[in-house]
Amino acid sequence: MNDQAIRAKIQSMPASRIREVADAGMGLDGVIPLWFGESDRPTPAVIKQAAVEALDRDETFYAANVGLTGLREAIRTYSNNLYSCALDLDQIAVTGSGMQAVMLSIQMLLEPGDNMVTTGPTWPNIPGTVDIMGAEPRIVPLDEHGGVWSLDLDKLMARVDQHTRVIFINSPGNPTGWVMPREQQETLLAFARERGVWLLSDDVYSRITYHGRHAPSFLELVEPGDRFISINSFSKAWRMTGWRLGWVVAPPELLNQYAKLTEFNTSCQPPFVQHAGITALEKGEDALAEMMAELKTNRQLVMDRLGGCTRLRISPPDAAFYAFFAVEGMSDSVATAKDILAQTRVGLAPGAAFGPEGEGYLRICFANRTDRMAEALDRLADYFDR
Amino acid sequence: MNDQAIRAKIQSMPASRIREVADAGMGLDGVIPLWFGESDRPTPAVIKQAAVEALDRDETFYAANVGLTGLREAIRTYSNNLYSCALDLDQIAVTGSGMQAVMLSIQMLLEPGDNMVTTGPTWPNIPGTVDIMGAEPRIVPLDEHGGVWSLDLDKLMARVDQHTRVIFINSPGNPTGWVMPREQQETLLAFARERGVWLLSDDVYSRITYHGRHAPSFLELVEPGDRFISINSFSKAWRMTGWRLGWVVAPPELLNQYAKLTEFNTSCQPPFVQHAGITALEKGEDALAEMMAELKTNRQLVMDRLGGCTRLRISPPDAAFYAFFAVEGMSDSVATAKDILAQTRVGLAPGAAFGPEGEGYLRICFANRTDRMAEALDRLADYFDR
Repeated sequence: MNDQAIRAKIQSMPASRIREVADAGMGLDGVIPLWFGESDRPTPAVIKQAAVEALDRDETFYAANVGLTGLREAIRTYSNNLYSCALDLDQIAVTGSGMQAVMLSIQMLLEPGDNMVTTGPTWPNIPGTVDIMGAEPRIVPLDEHGGVWSLDLDKLMARVDQHTRVIFINSPGNPTGWVMPREQQETLLAFARERGVWLLSDDVYSRITYHGRHAPSFLELVEPGDRFISINSFSKAWRMTGWRLGWVVAPPELLNQYAKLTEFNTSCQPPFVQHAGITALEKGEDALAEMMAELKTNRQLVMDRLGGCTRLRISPPDAAFYAFFAVEGMSDSVATAKDILAQTRVGLAPGAAFGPEGEGYLRICFANRTDRMAEALDRLADYFDR
Repeated sequence: MNDQAIRAKIQSMPASRIREVADAGMGLDGVIPLWFGESDRPTPAVIKQAAVEALDRDETFYAANVGLTGLREAIRTYSNNLYSCALDLDQIAVTGSGMQAVMLSIQMLLEPGDNMVTTGPTWPNIPGTVDIMGAEPRIVPLDEHGGVWSLDLDKLMARVDQHTRVIFINSPGNPTGWVMPREQQETLLAFARERGVWLLSDDVYSRITYHGRHAPSFLELVEPGDRFISINSFSKAWRMTGWRLGWVVAPPELLNQYAKLTEFNTSCQPPFVQHAGITALEKGEDALAEMMAELKTNRQLVMDRLGGCTRLRISPPDAAFYAFFAVEGMSDSVATAKDILAQTRVGLAPGAAFGPEGEGYLRICFANRTDRMAEALDRLADYFDR
């Protein structure tokens, strides 16, 4: 089958570099896998139970494209309480994962000739959706000094031109843990208003912060009429990675557009999964608090064990559950991650998985049981101190 | 918010005309809803139980993009037994619904400037994916004589030009119940080979047939190297509409492409949903046989009650669980469906929901309990005999 059999754009999209390292670990014994962005603890029992009860009630039929009203109401209550905003129900649509929330939004907004400006290093799935739609992702590099990440906002705004339809901000950011400060949010929102550009905010890690109940969110700033979409997910805060459930907050004019696009992508989300989502929002705070306590311990452990390695530039992240650290002299993060895997049996994500801006770095996910983290970090400290 | 806020293509896509009628029925008492394509019976208990057990086992984490190996093996065994083919595991990818199987395939194959040739009246979601990708859907009308549907294959082949990347065949067809005969499949496959065009076969209703165990399938004809994709779903045959689980059979060269596109659309399907799929394939034949027995009874009931109405052109479908019948003198199927709803409290789908080729027709879904079907059909016969 020749290359022209499918779209050149799809053919040339790289496969995951994380997966490349993980595949190298297949069949190895004793691997501690810290490459993917998920906790090693399963979904809290109370959330699972809600799905089982919905199945018992035979909630196995098609549901509304934009989601169960009960779930949309729960998202409204949750959001309004958390961010002190005043969302209406017609601003909320349920999606089949935060990933799908990104895809539906990009399908709605971008076509060939358009571009989207975002920051890097980045979760590759964000520019990936833009590539699929035949539009242009423009990556503005974040800056890193002493392991601390920041954005020169002028550099980002300078990349916006008349073909820019979307500015996409992932804060707290994966893989860096970077958090956009409130003042930058205000400046950027004013700029987006002036230019008529859509502002998309990936708030998936909003609750995974080490300062307060949530990271600064555009939801605290936007007003009716703003071209603003917030993307969110149940995956990280409620340990529901396998469930594929997320949502968007958008202007009410877009609700029917999300309904149409959901219809043509997956048609709806399973009602029993949505009932689990309701329970997560209404009864999930205790489990979230427990996870955050463990993450705080683990984050300190990362610094205790790796902070003293002279080859590394590392700093405690303000948010998310990753450390994204530079390794002095490393020019091939995939090869290094494979070497670390072979020598220590610890699985890390190579920085190159997050675009060329990520080369020279490695990502460790510390959302794992503390004793496993301690074991993995001992092995890594030994590796880097050699 | 002005129209230029989002893509004109998305803005102008019509919302579902079925939904328009169903919305008119909101708040009406005693409605028998036969507008959507699903059974009124819930998912078989044995299938639900498999999901509950997987949740008990904490299968709540990310899974492989192309699906659990166990489910792919079950699909291979099921397909090879049913169609006497010899599929390998690397030809099978799990998707989040038959709908998503269509969307991923279209993302892979079509971009602006390309076109896809298919038949109409059609499930609007098929051309909808082509519209989203900015390509051109070309609808070739099926012919209807005395309520029996057929395709003039020469007309379809004449619409294929140098920009045609895909021929999409939905057989058994929704809404018509049309089944492409074996000889036409052979002719079309030879034509697609000669022209280097992809043949996409929507086999979702393959098992819902009144002649044998399955409808004729291209899977019985294709050979290695053919540009062929079969799309399937758990929704109809196993009453799993709300679960959003489907699959594709494709050349092995495409497996990694489906993995990439799944990653960028929903990233994976819930593992506990996939376990339900395994059980459906391995233990679902009894429930399917029971449903088919009821469907046969209901199909006869439709003919007994509506076959004598002089205003209607109706014939028993060879497959699927719809009757798609012409109403003499009707020029606005949406208005008529609303009038029927108001006067009889029976919910039908207007033909216009399936494109302009469907105007003049109504669709009734008879996958409902026989006593409810009898009541609905009595009301409809009374309406049409007036």
